[in-house]
Amino acid sequence: MNEFELIQHFFTRSACAQGGEHILLGIGDDCALLQMPAGHSCAVSTDTLVSGIHFPDNAPACLLGQRALAVAVSDLAAMGATPVGFTLAITLPELDAAWLQAFSTGLSAMAQQCAIRLIGGDTTRGPLAMTLTVMGAVPDQQALLRSGAQVGDLLCVSGSLGAAAAAVPVVLNETASDTLAESTLQALLAAYWSPQPQLKLGQYLRGKAHAALDISDGLLADCGHIAKASNVCVQIQQAQIPVATAAYELLGAEQALQCALSGGDDYQLAFTLPSEQLASLQQQFADVCVVGQVCAGAGVQLLDAAGRIVRQSYNGYQHFN
Amino acid sequence: MNEFELIQHFFTRSACAQGGEHILLGIGDDCALLQMPAGHSCAVSTDTLVSGIHFPDNAPACLLGQRALAVAVSDLAAMGATPVGFTLAITLPELDAAWLQAFSTGLSAMAQQCAIRLIGGDTTRGPLAMTLTVMGAVPDQQALLRSGAQVGDLLCVSGSLGAAAAAVPVVLNETASDTLAESTLQALLAAYWSPQPQLKLGQYLRGKAHAALDISDGLLADCGHIAKASNVCVQIQQAQIPVATAAYELLGAEQALQCALSGGDDYQLAFTLPSEQLASLQQQFADVCVVGQVCAGAGVQLLDAAGRIVRQSYNGYQHFN
Repeated sequence: MNEFELIQHFFTRSACAQGGEHILLGIGDDCALLQMPAGHSCAVSTDTLVSGIHFPDNAPACLLGQRALAVAVSDLAAMGATPVGFTLAITLPELDAAWLQAFSTGLSAMAQQCAIRLIGGDTTRGPLAMTLTVMGAVPDQQALLRSGAQVGDLLCVSGSLGAAAAAVPVVLNETASDTLAESTLQALLAAYWSPQPQLKLGQYLRGKAHAALDISDGLLADCGHIAKASNVCVQIQQAQIPVATAAYELLGAEQALQCALSGGDDYQLAFTLPSEQLASLQQQFADVCVVGQVCAGAGVQLLDAAGRIVRQSYNGYQHFN
Repeated sequence: MNEFELIQHFFTRSACAQGGEHILLGIGDDCALLQMPAGHSCAVSTDTLVSGIHFPDNAPACLLGQRALAVAVSDLAAMGATPVGFTLAITLPELDAAWLQAFSTGLSAMAQQCAIRLIGGDTTRGPLAMTLTVMGAVPDQQALLRSGAQVGDLLCVSGSLGAAAAAVPVVLNETASDTLAESTLQALLAAYWSPQPQLKLGQYLRGKAHAALDISDGLLADCGHIAKASNVCVQIQQAQIPVATAAYELLGAEQALQCALSGGDDYQLAFTLPSEQLASLQQQFADVCVVGQVCAGAGVQLLDAAGRIVRQSYNGYQHFN
């Protein structure tokens, strides 16, 4: 099987997944062609995952395919975009049919779930890595930016935090997991391997939230991005952070909180919202929690139950530090 | 300088290059936002370059930045698209400010030349590699596909072929270049490091050419893609192929012809055209050559001056063979 046949064979399912009404031309020409619906812009985001840096060298291919797409689509959710198509540039050390079969199964499952279709890509030889570029449609003027937070907004997150970061030693087999309850183990592995892009919530928040992003670097660091882009201070009430139960069960309260604050990889949304929007939002999205508020000033403040500032030294994951 | 500052600092020039009227939001949020002009589709293509596979490990960073973008934009040219924006996912073994400075200088120069703007990306640590995803605008129904070739069309190429492939041993310092004329050496290095995306020609060919692609795998292999997608036979007259002078001077007639047929990396366009379009086309694009024709049948036939089929065993570059 040559390179061209390889690409066609394994990725056909992802190319035929749900969606596709805005794809005029998919895989197989020099470019794919997308046609956004009238009155919509095209949202674009690129993510790279490198073996040994972003996932373990021996990562199960199916889970890896699933996670790689989920992480990328999460950026569309954070803009309030509806997924349309994605490209996959994958670098492989060798042509391993079983690995590719499993990877494309995981990729296709997530593509189905997100109603996004593979529209092109590139397959090259080299150390295992992949870059996904996702494209979605967002109604003009309604994209959720980082820069719109307003003084008086509530700060909300879409669900519990910390399980993905807590799961890393389990994923790497660096911790004894045989004493863990099976349900805890499964919750940790699911948080790491199967983050759920918050697409419905992102689309609901169009025209309602003032600022939003997905939590990839950790709550503190990502709220720092909102604070900087919006020229405001983001205050976080430490006691209100929805720390994931599985993280708590594995690590105890203090370390689980650290995972929630700084661990990243949860791919929940953080967003700021006028308070009058909260009740109807929580009726539809029961997992949404208020964790703080936006006030005048700069930067991020973490507050304890008495309203005192908690000192934090760690500011999120940076590859080159 | 942290990861966020690094990205901002070195790639700001590329982000501020020419163009940009269709970019609603550039670098710095979860997604960029593009707005195609009315009546246009969005053309998308992804290319990966891996160190040691697609370029030498010690490639000069400035030339590499220039070439990486040119190769990617060439796919837009092949669709007849007008460049809009691109994302750059770059994986670096270390934070080397001098290297990044040089790379971004080359990238910016090519971005200026192509009027395309950097709109986002990802910077990760790992073995040197880069994935560029380019986006352009193409008027509805006018994209140049591989599938439209018609029996009776002329087969044309946009310029001379073979110099980029001939240059590889020179680029790798595997051949003594001190006996070469300086002009030949420069022509070879320019062909390899500075391919020129045929944007003006691609845009001219909208609504005129029946099929087109850029020659990245070699003339024979790429004409095979047209033949297959269009269900036709593509005949190439060997004597009419515009073999690059520099390739001829380095390698002699026979090997230079092989480079033109199978070497790839030239990023000229190959396209099929009704014969009545030829005269006005060549008035504006003097380098365009007729190299064959489209007839009923399948596959690619290489013909000698007497019209006999020349046997060819090599079918273009495939990473996994």
